[in-house]
Amino acid sequence: MTGYGKDSRTSARDKRYDILFEPVRIGPVTTRNRFYQVPHCNGMGRAYPSSMAEMRGVKAEGGWGVVCTEQVEIHHTSELSPVIEGRLWDDADLPVFQKMTDKIHEHGSLAGIEPCYDGLATPNRYSREIPMGPSARPVTYLEPVQARAMDKTDIRNLRRWYVDAARRSRLAGFDIIYVYAGHDLNALSHFLSRRWNDRGDEYGGSLENRARLLREVLADTREAVGDTCAVALRFGVEELLGDAGFTSGGEGREVVEALAEIPDLWDVNVSDWSNDSATSRFAAQGFQDSYVAFVKKVTSKPVVGVGRYTSPDAMVALIKSGALDLIGAARPSIADPFLPKKVEEGRVEDIRECIGCNICVSGDFLATPMRCTQNPTMGEEWRKGWHPERIAPKTSEDSVLIVGAGPAGLEAARALGQRGYAVTLAEAGKVLGGRVAVESRLPGLSEWKRVADYREYQINQMVNVETYLDSRLTAEQVLEFEADHVVVATGARWCTTGVGRANTAPIPVAEEARILTPDDIAAGPVPDGPVVIFDDDHYFMGGLLAELLRGKGHEVTLVTPAADVSHWTHNTLEQARIQKRLIEMDVRIRPLHSVVALGRDTATLQCVYTERRHEIACSTFVPVTMRRPVDTLYHEILRLTGPGEAPAPKSLGRIGDCLAPGTIAAAVYGGHRYARELGEPVTDAVPFRRELPQLATN
Amino acid sequence: MTGYGKDSRTSARDKRYDILFEPVRIGPVTTRNRFYQVPHCNGMGRAYPSSMAEMRGVKAEGGWGVVCTEQVEIHHTSELSPVIEGRLWDDADLPVFQKMTDKIHEHGSLAGIEPCYDGLATPNRYSREIPMGPSARPVTYLEPVQARAMDKTDIRNLRRWYVDAARRSRLAGFDIIYVYAGHDLNALSHFLSRRWNDRGDEYGGSLENRARLLREVLADTREAVGDTCAVALRFGVEELLGDAGFTSGGEGREVVEALAEIPDLWDVNVSDWSNDSATSRFAAQGFQDSYVAFVKKVTSKPVVGVGRYTSPDAMVALIKSGALDLIGAARPSIADPFLPKKVEEGRVEDIRECIGCNICVSGDFLATPMRCTQNPTMGEEWRKGWHPERIAPKTSEDSVLIVGAGPAGLEAARALGQRGYAVTLAEAGKVLGGRVAVESRLPGLSEWKRVADYREYQINQMVNVETYLDSRLTAEQVLEFEADHVVVATGARWCTTGVGRANTAPIPVAEEARILTPDDIAAGPVPDGPVVIFDDDHYFMGGLLAELLRGKGHEVTLVTPAADVSHWTHNTLEQARIQKRLIEMDVRIRPLHSVVALGRDTATLQCVYTERRHEIACSTFVPVTMRRPVDTLYHEILRLTGPGEAPAPKSLGRIGDCLAPGTIAAAVYGGHRYARELGEPVTDAVPFRRELPQLATN
Repeated sequence: MTGYGKDSRTSARDKRYDILFEPVRIGPVTTRNRFYQVPHCNGMGRAYPSSMAEMRGVKAEGGWGVVCTEQVEIHHTSELSPVIEGRLWDDADLPVFQKMTDKIHEHGSLAGIEPCYDGLATPNRYSREIPMGPSARPVTYLEPVQARAMDKTDIRNLRRWYVDAARRSRLAGFDIIYVYAGHDLNALSHFLSRRWNDRGDEYGGSLENRARLLREVLADTREAVGDTCAVALRFGVEELLGDAGFTSGGEGREVVEALAEIPDLWDVNVSDWSNDSATSRFAAQGFQDSYVAFVKKVTSKPVVGVGRYTSPDAMVALIKSGALDLIGAARPSIADPFLPKKVEEGRVEDIRECIGCNICVSGDFLATPMRCTQNPTMGEEWRKGWHPERIAPKTSEDSVLIVGAGPAGLEAARALGQRGYAVTLAEAGKVLGGRVAVESRLPGLSEWKRVADYREYQINQMVNVETYLDSRLTAEQVLEFEADHVVVATGARWCTTGVGRANTAPIPVAEEARILTPDDIAAGPVPDGPVVIFDDDHYFMGGLLAELLRGKGHEVTLVTPAADVSHWTHNTLEQARIQKRLIEMDVRIRPLHSVVALGRDTATLQCVYTERRHEIACSTFVPVTMRRPVDTLYHEILRLTGPGEAPAPKSLGRIGDCLAPGTIAAAVYGGHRYARELGEPVTDAVPFRRELPQLATN
Repeated sequence: MTGYGKDSRTSARDKRYDILFEPVRIGPVTTRNRFYQVPHCNGMGRAYPSSMAEMRGVKAEGGWGVVCTEQVEIHHTSELSPVIEGRLWDDADLPVFQKMTDKIHEHGSLAGIEPCYDGLATPNRYSREIPMGPSARPVTYLEPVQARAMDKTDIRNLRRWYVDAARRSRLAGFDIIYVYAGHDLNALSHFLSRRWNDRGDEYGGSLENRARLLREVLADTREAVGDTCAVALRFGVEELLGDAGFTSGGEGREVVEALAEIPDLWDVNVSDWSNDSATSRFAAQGFQDSYVAFVKKVTSKPVVGVGRYTSPDAMVALIKSGALDLIGAARPSIADPFLPKKVEEGRVEDIRECIGCNICVSGDFLATPMRCTQNPTMGEEWRKGWHPERIAPKTSEDSVLIVGAGPAGLEAARALGQRGYAVTLAEAGKVLGGRVAVESRLPGLSEWKRVADYREYQINQMVNVETYLDSRLTAEQVLEFEADHVVVATGARWCTTGVGRANTAPIPVAEEARILTPDDIAAGPVPDGPVVIFDDDHYFMGGLLAELLRGKGHEVTLVTPAADVSHWTHNTLEQARIQKRLIEMDVRIRPLHSVVALGRDTATLQCVYTERRHEIACSTFVPVTMRRPVDTLYHEILRLTGPGEAPAPKSLGRIGDCLAPGTIAAAVYGGHRYARELGEPVTDAVPFRRELPQLATN
């Protein structure tokens, strides 16, 4: 067992996977294998460029043959602030991208860039320029800004800006230059689309006319860089909008047919973003296959597609069946930057599979560096120096007792084990996983189980990690164990009080009222009569319980102080799907209300605006408001080891929901951080490197 | 007329205003006058620090005796990303603040800083640290993050961080150090509040206990810096929540009584932020007076309060009546950084009065540099070198014809006039102001008229600006005028088609359907029968027309594809007030629907999630979806001056809504920019200086 990776377990690659490591020619460049990190945003880009560059470099190190940028703004007249994408407005931006391409080339991979001009998809909050699009329309954000229709001069200018961007991209060292016409997010796709383009000139009307600008930009880009760089075209062949959008059997196919041999590479998907990056709750691995399958039949150029693939067998099948030439990935490459290397080294069981939760996506929406539920080092590669596969070896022979094998405890055990510490993991229940074991049994969340599966497999390989199930420990037992370090990871339980954001004091409850928490429901009790779910949590649980209980035939009302259901899931691209499903299942939705009192058979609702109240029928009340850390053990250990009491371990800590209930991603991060920091000096100084704006000297 | 200010019109100050220019002692420091820019955010802060510093310096130059920061994060365990506030985490941040204090001191003003620790008001998206508060609670953002309850060690640490921040603040040159316990936004106010503090120890329970931490931080700060810097306490004495919050007659007063003589200055307001910064639509100048009046009676220390004061007479009355010692301002200092100087120089009629629209606030919410409807130079001081009072003199003897005297045309005329150009402003209507003249007649918007009033007064003083009312010009007349430069500012009209965001094609309309646009309604036609307003604009107009028409007795249904009414007004702190008012007026609200067809007496609504349709009664349909630029004149001039046609002016431009319909702020900005750039080389390179992150060199 070494602190640096698991090379001891490396074995020969399975020959079935050889095909994935064949080089593929893409115009004038060649990728060393078929693993292709398609462009994806990351919340670092222009604002945290060192972080972004390091993160991309780690992916190249992990074996992705092609590593691309996020979308990269090419001109200040279309910028996405505060959302953090790439920015290549002028030569001042070159160093950022040079740093990125250097990091990628260091590992023998190709670097791709996705220049974008978002047009009527952005209000230009920072530059204050007036957006432009094919036609005069409000920008697609709900913001009081309208784009103006581009005239011929504007079109010429835009073509020049694309050329400038392509030239700068080559200068910055990129091997693949995208022409991006996907996701309904940019001028090229807006021109293509009947929905946004109602021009009367040669750039509007027929598909040929609507595709004119795209065809011109492809030619311009080729002319600017085509002898040294590949030109890729990213296009959403299907929009799931019927005739109002592109379809694989209609205009989507016609576009591919019309431009078939022009780009060096087709990068195709189902748009918009919420379709392309559907969560595992709503779409399985390979969900795009049937839509993009036609592309290979229409073009002789290599084709890359995505489908949240984490299985090398499935990847091989895709190549062999002629569906794709390159396996595109965004999320799987975030969850495991070393996925290709693990296949290459014959250790596919080490792959940390994406669970399809879209916590990564929330970083983009919230304009902060992306994080990942499965990969706690994501976004920390540069600022904390965390590598997804390597970790510093132990600094002492200390032993560690971890109480609780939820996501925090499991990750702490895995990472401490990797460091070489002697670890004991004690779990009160009969299975590992904690909340993950419970939540992954809810409808649609089965892939979340991978959080536990990956870690369970890893620690099972480690002779220095011992795991005990069915081992609920008292504080006395913990102390008798005499571990040098004790960390409590005993999770949290949903509260019954109704306190949360809307209610700052407990809800008055009639004695006969029946209250079940999400934990109770998971444990089996069946609600009776009309069920009222009060969702003041706003993530997935409230909406999911409504789906679960309604699916079992209960009459369900979902009350929330927010304006829509599962409000935070806007950030995971799920909100519309959740609310649609609930409406179609006849869940009664009462937004913009709180529950402020419970009678025997009633719940009193209060309008968040007017404070007007009314009652609805309620036989079972399910508050989804906040969770209470299960930290009795922690406090009991503290008490027993107080001044003059029993000897304390060298350190006593709490991680995960037991410290503060949050996302699974936060729990995994907390467990990982605990492992990284064990034996390090304790400080409350800023624990990471920062990227500060240069201050003008005048 | 000079290009640099209007010193020629400076006269002696009215003696009535002398009292405003008395120095006021604040602990160990003295402010030169009673004009006090209270802390306010600005969307620049940590991300655009040169812009922030220059903006603050301009306010000092404009005569504000005290100029403060926004809230400034003191530790990475409580940070507000992506929202852009100040950041003083460690010594690396000192240069930003040193630059700011230098700029302020250059003009003889005092610099104040507002350190903050937001605790359970922020999820720490960037630092990923677990938030802390007095009690374990969900963070107040609708985000799946819970704060943990602080233990005694945490409290000691927090006190130390405040001390570190105070010391660093002194090092950075600040004269006034705030202890910030206002707006329900930080750990100090959370500890104070019964709503968030349910601790059982000496920091919870009685008000004395809840105020303990605040008292300690005040003492610590005093000890750290008190001999050289003043210590100010910012506190919301009234929260408009009855007994659940602070009230001027209850716990708000008790806090002031308990701590009366401890700080050197009381900065008091009505919290939370939506109350403190209520818009003119909902609150008049001086709306806070009755709530804060008691403070001066309880303390001998100077008191600063706010109330969107722009009238020096009102300010004098406040001082003379003993209500306040210092006139606090955030928004009035944004709209006119030179307000004090204008009073001082006897030219109060030059004051550019805040209209109370809160466009400034939207910059904070959208994490982009603040802008201002009245002051187009706000946020541009450093990056474009725009000064609110100075402008480059003309570079030629060219004449300019401006067609249309809305906000864009008026501002272009004013700024071009200031530069010394010969300007003709032709307006088709009988009054100046364009849309501002119309919209300011809507309920609650009367102060918006100030956009026109300020500019009308200014151009009336200019011999080189000639204004013609009732002068609708044809393209031929424009050309006959033979101005060197022509700029068309003829505004926009609301569309009837229903096209916008939700509908990308016109709504099918039965022949007998009656459609009135907001322009029609402003012009007088009275709707009949049930009115259906379709708001796909999401700013103020849809909700305001509902209020107007319902107020006149019509049956009104407001349909919107958004989840709530006037959705964008979340960014101006108005959304809750608007929806509350509409509910109380019995406007029927149909969120999450589009109008997709109109019959003679019906409107067909479609659910945005399920696409299910249903009909509602509709005798008059009012689409508030998008506007069409009134650009016929512009295109006609273009046509007449095409190749081989009439001689064209040296330049022909469009500004404001005529180019692209947007906010009034955008129109004023467009007019101002036109004036700044006339005679400058035309380029599409980045038109401002940028603040780039330092790239790591390893």
